[in-house]
Amino acid sequence: MADLPKTPLLDTVDTPQDLRKLAPAQLRQLADELRTETISAVGTTGGHLGSGLGVVELTVAIHYVFDTPDDRLIWDVGHQCYPHKILTGRRDRIRTIRQGGGLSGFTKRSESEYDPFGAAHSSTSISAALGFAVANKLNEAPGKAIAVIGDGAMSAGMAYEAMNNAEAAGNRLIVILNDNDMSIAPPVGGLSAYLARLISSSEYLGLRSLARRVTQKVSRRLTAAAGKAEEFARGMATGGTLFEELGFYYVGPIDGHNLEHLIPVLENVRDAEQGPILVHVVTKKGKGYAPAEKAADKYHGVQKFDVITGAQAKTPPGPPAYTKVFADALIAEGERDATVCAITAAMPSGTGLDKFQAMFPDRTFDVGIAEQHAVTFAAGLAAQGMRPFCAIYSTFLQRAYDQVVHDVAIQNLPVRFAIDRAGLVGADGATHAGSFDVTYLASLPNFVVMAAADEVELVHMTHTAALHDSGPIALRYPRGNGIGLELPKVPQRLEIGKGRVVREGKKVAILSLGTRLAEALKAADTLDAKGLSTTVADLRFAKPLDEDLIRRLLTTHEVAVTIEEGAIGGMGAHVLTLASDTGLIDAGLKLRTMRLPDLFQDQDKPEKQYDEAGLNAANIVDTVLKALRYNEAELADGVRA
Amino acid sequence: MADLPKTPLLDTVDTPQDLRKLAPAQLRQLADELRTETISAVGTTGGHLGSGLGVVELTVAIHYVFDTPDDRLIWDVGHQCYPHKILTGRRDRIRTIRQGGGLSGFTKRSESEYDPFGAAHSSTSISAALGFAVANKLNEAPGKAIAVIGDGAMSAGMAYEAMNNAEAAGNRLIVILNDNDMSIAPPVGGLSAYLARLISSSEYLGLRSLARRVTQKVSRRLTAAAGKAEEFARGMATGGTLFEELGFYYVGPIDGHNLEHLIPVLENVRDAEQGPILVHVVTKKGKGYAPAEKAADKYHGVQKFDVITGAQAKTPPGPPAYTKVFADALIAEGERDATVCAITAAMPSGTGLDKFQAMFPDRTFDVGIAEQHAVTFAAGLAAQGMRPFCAIYSTFLQRAYDQVVHDVAIQNLPVRFAIDRAGLVGADGATHAGSFDVTYLASLPNFVVMAAADEVELVHMTHTAALHDSGPIALRYPRGNGIGLELPKVPQRLEIGKGRVVREGKKVAILSLGTRLAEALKAADTLDAKGLSTTVADLRFAKPLDEDLIRRLLTTHEVAVTIEEGAIGGMGAHVLTLASDTGLIDAGLKLRTMRLPDLFQDQDKPEKQYDEAGLNAANIVDTVLKALRYNEAELADGVRA
Repeated sequence: MADLPKTPLLDTVDTPQDLRKLAPAQLRQLADELRTETISAVGTTGGHLGSGLGVVELTVAIHYVFDTPDDRLIWDVGHQCYPHKILTGRRDRIRTIRQGGGLSGFTKRSESEYDPFGAAHSSTSISAALGFAVANKLNEAPGKAIAVIGDGAMSAGMAYEAMNNAEAAGNRLIVILNDNDMSIAPPVGGLSAYLARLISSSEYLGLRSLARRVTQKVSRRLTAAAGKAEEFARGMATGGTLFEELGFYYVGPIDGHNLEHLIPVLENVRDAEQGPILVHVVTKKGKGYAPAEKAADKYHGVQKFDVITGAQAKTPPGPPAYTKVFADALIAEGERDATVCAITAAMPSGTGLDKFQAMFPDRTFDVGIAEQHAVTFAAGLAAQGMRPFCAIYSTFLQRAYDQVVHDVAIQNLPVRFAIDRAGLVGADGATHAGSFDVTYLASLPNFVVMAAADEVELVHMTHTAALHDSGPIALRYPRGNGIGLELPKVPQRLEIGKGRVVREGKKVAILSLGTRLAEALKAADTLDAKGLSTTVADLRFAKPLDEDLIRRLLTTHEVAVTIEEGAIGGMGAHVLTLASDTGLIDAGLKLRTMRLPDLFQDQDKPEKQYDEAGLNAANIVDTVLKALRYNEAELADGVRA
Repeated sequence: MADLPKTPLLDTVDTPQDLRKLAPAQLRQLADELRTETISAVGTTGGHLGSGLGVVELTVAIHYVFDTPDDRLIWDVGHQCYPHKILTGRRDRIRTIRQGGGLSGFTKRSESEYDPFGAAHSSTSISAALGFAVANKLNEAPGKAIAVIGDGAMSAGMAYEAMNNAEAAGNRLIVILNDNDMSIAPPVGGLSAYLARLISSSEYLGLRSLARRVTQKVSRRLTAAAGKAEEFARGMATGGTLFEELGFYYVGPIDGHNLEHLIPVLENVRDAEQGPILVHVVTKKGKGYAPAEKAADKYHGVQKFDVITGAQAKTPPGPPAYTKVFADALIAEGERDATVCAITAAMPSGTGLDKFQAMFPDRTFDVGIAEQHAVTFAAGLAAQGMRPFCAIYSTFLQRAYDQVVHDVAIQNLPVRFAIDRAGLVGADGATHAGSFDVTYLASLPNFVVMAAADEVELVHMTHTAALHDSGPIALRYPRGNGIGLELPKVPQRLEIGKGRVVREGKKVAILSLGTRLAEALKAADTLDAKGLSTTVADLRFAKPLDEDLIRRLLTTHEVAVTIEEGAIGGMGAHVLTLASDTGLIDAGLKLRTMRLPDLFQDQDKPEKQYDEAGLNAANIVDTVLKALRYNEAELADGVRA
């Protein structure tokens, strides 16, 4: 490629071992080249940019000071790991990131020994690092564990649970708080204000001078007696700090882009005899790339872009995204009913709630990365007469499963769950796939579980959920765009537990839940052409099932296939259970269930992921033919019709 | 009943409205009578005692000061609610608590308007209270929301997430930290130390004098300017406090047993114009009952006892509890292998890990009420070569579902999950039932899921899990005692994914997972006597299924029934899916799945719960006969054999 940047020093560094041979004076140049290479690579592939640019110097400094991979470096969330991947033997594949067969967009154990613990969901790093540190302590092994965690990720309770247990690790645990005051959306709540107060306090004399003090004092501390060291640590910032209350030695804040500050502090921390230590590093998301700095939020996740101008590739025009359809539908409900309110866990733009918030700021709650709280807070709102929509991606709702069971389902409270990114998610890969929600929700008493087959259905389901006051209700819909249907002016209220027949046939029945409906219809065309008259139904509800419809389809067709974008235990298993409970299977029933396979699928283009999962029209046709024990030859010219 | 205590004042109080008519000087007597009545009631029924005794005065004070039920009072966990139930119209049923058809042992919305939000799992109260408070704010309604939460519950991340979001509620939210320095087991970690430091600080001048200061200063604060008030709130304790950093006005600590301190402070807090406010109340678990005070831990949950002596009813001699069998088996593994270690989330005695801890203190980790951290910490330990057993009740493992998926299953790390209290749990009721673990674990790629049919199997499965290094593995076992089998001297390593045939027959096959095996064998006796020769298999594994065994049983028997103590989507659904995938159902298959019903079952005696669930031997027989479309008459004398 002609436009690869010139990176003469970086070209000599394949691994951190090479990096550690450089003189300290060379690290600035290395960081600059690493930044340039990161921008160039993400310009080619798209992906996460701003967070990686914010930790270029930190990445260099950590690998320079610590003995990776034996010292265990754990990046929280992992989306800031592109510079780390470039420095740890993966530069040759960095332009395959987030693509099928290429590098993951997150840290991943199977990819490199420099990724000791994979991530993608936030706030796991301190717990994991503590595990490494304690294991080393038990085995009297020397290695350290370093967690790098952003201020946004600190809002999750899990990070607090881990900090509350960190004292056991002693000096083997180092937590680097990467404070860029900007997670995916501006962080919220008391902790954020606290960090801001800390930085703006009278004790805080400007990054430069304070960092100098830190460097000096840390040195002094580590040579002084333990009592002195503790006194220093407790006193040096603004008095007691949150982290000190939880048992950490607090060091900082220091400028995360200044290698002359970072390196000596990290060296001191590495050699400290006491711990655990929290190093508070202040960075700027998107640092060093003007288009990103100007619009840090937009450059969190980007399309391919032109490195000179920063202009991102335009997404081709098409139907609106499901997220937008939901947002508009929810706004309509909010206008109709003043009790409709909305909760997001740090994903206002990803869930479309930023649009709802613009209309109804008082009725929109961004609780930060805090899904557990989000759900129980919604339950409290519902118990006091509000009609809350809890809008959380399928994969992140897993964080609040117990709250869904204990606070919502058992109490039968009418919380509405708007579950975006249900099913496969393309470039984000296995960690972000929404594979399990139907299985873990439809098994709960009291729950209603819907899946939208298209954007019109999503509008109807949003309306149906808003009006459903008798218990919890969930609507799931996929990542990506609708199929181009005209949206209804007036939404319908769907009858709970009733599906719809989209196409009537006689021999084959396809029972679809959610957006595989389009493939089911394609498969029906193919089957019809082979002389196999095919019915296609959209069940709409995984719970309660439309028992009458299912019974009719199973008893009047020769073969039936269920299809859904979810794991085993979901709609297909419920249909089979119904068929078993009612004795429908006794006399023989050619019934097959198509679902996500029993593996975690890596990132790829969505259509390839569906191929791998076996959930495309051709797979449906194949499943039907196999169930009928027909082969293609017999079907030529509709012989068996 | 002859031995009911004399409670002349309490007899005049049916509801908080009656309570509020009393003069302040009468409240001491009322509290004393309420304590006596609580002791008498729990002496009759058994249940939670120590935590209720600790909040007698607090219960009186809150209902006296606040306008319940319009002001929303939310007891965290809810096991301290017995005095609250006595004061809120439920005294006449207090001796039915935790019994079938009686009062729940926890707060419960369906039971009383004074229980606005049910609980049983810990640490949900602040989130819920925030929901009530914010709803009132949106509706410009005057009501307050009061959460009462123990210091142990504060170790859960969810409580922190809620506090981090509490500023939105303003003065409508009041959190009362009930600090008895003793959750179920002694609390651990940084927060606990912090509270201890706070209480023992030089600013803390003894409960009496400090409480007097608080009372005076709170009054002054509320009449002074806002700026003054803030200055006071921030300065009055030991400087910055954790709670203030999170945006609360901190008041305390005050003596939670002194009504003359409690009432005026709560009145001031109620009338405060700023908030949210955290009131730090220090109480003693078991207060006022000598046997409980002397042994607060033992009186957390008690059997029926003699009020005079405190002697608890002896549990009848019988086989050892599954918990003990697991503990002994794990100790054996720990002796064999120095990498075996154990993690509990504040349940060392409930999980039996206290015994393991006595043997291997360095390898036992009680992380507090912090299931999310527990699981990812275990994942980190496993990634560094340890063999961790994460021992968490089925119902509490729900708290860590995302960590199970994201940190363990996706990374295929060999964390061992010892899942106690799987299935129905008797007196603890719906909130503690372990109904969903097979459904939510067996749907995950990479997972091995076992269920022990008896105590011998539990020993084998513990050993099998210890040796299973290739990925995550779970073993589930029920609350209660084994069936009296002699334990093996040498445990067997079970072959992964292989079941066992316990009894060979010809016509009927019962496929059992877990402890319903005993009922399956009873049913087989009955069926055999009717001339229906019955095979009974113990599948042992919900995942991977023993496909060969299942195929054989389904194809060589006329009818097959699966039975498990879990919700829909579990083993039965997986067997059906296998039968469908392989085409076994095409030719007709009399296959039925017996499982927990689609409802949350209230507390009752275990045998009654099984009756309600339809999972007893008689139900199995009935299911078989119905599937065969036989009736009893036809079966008389084995006519159809």
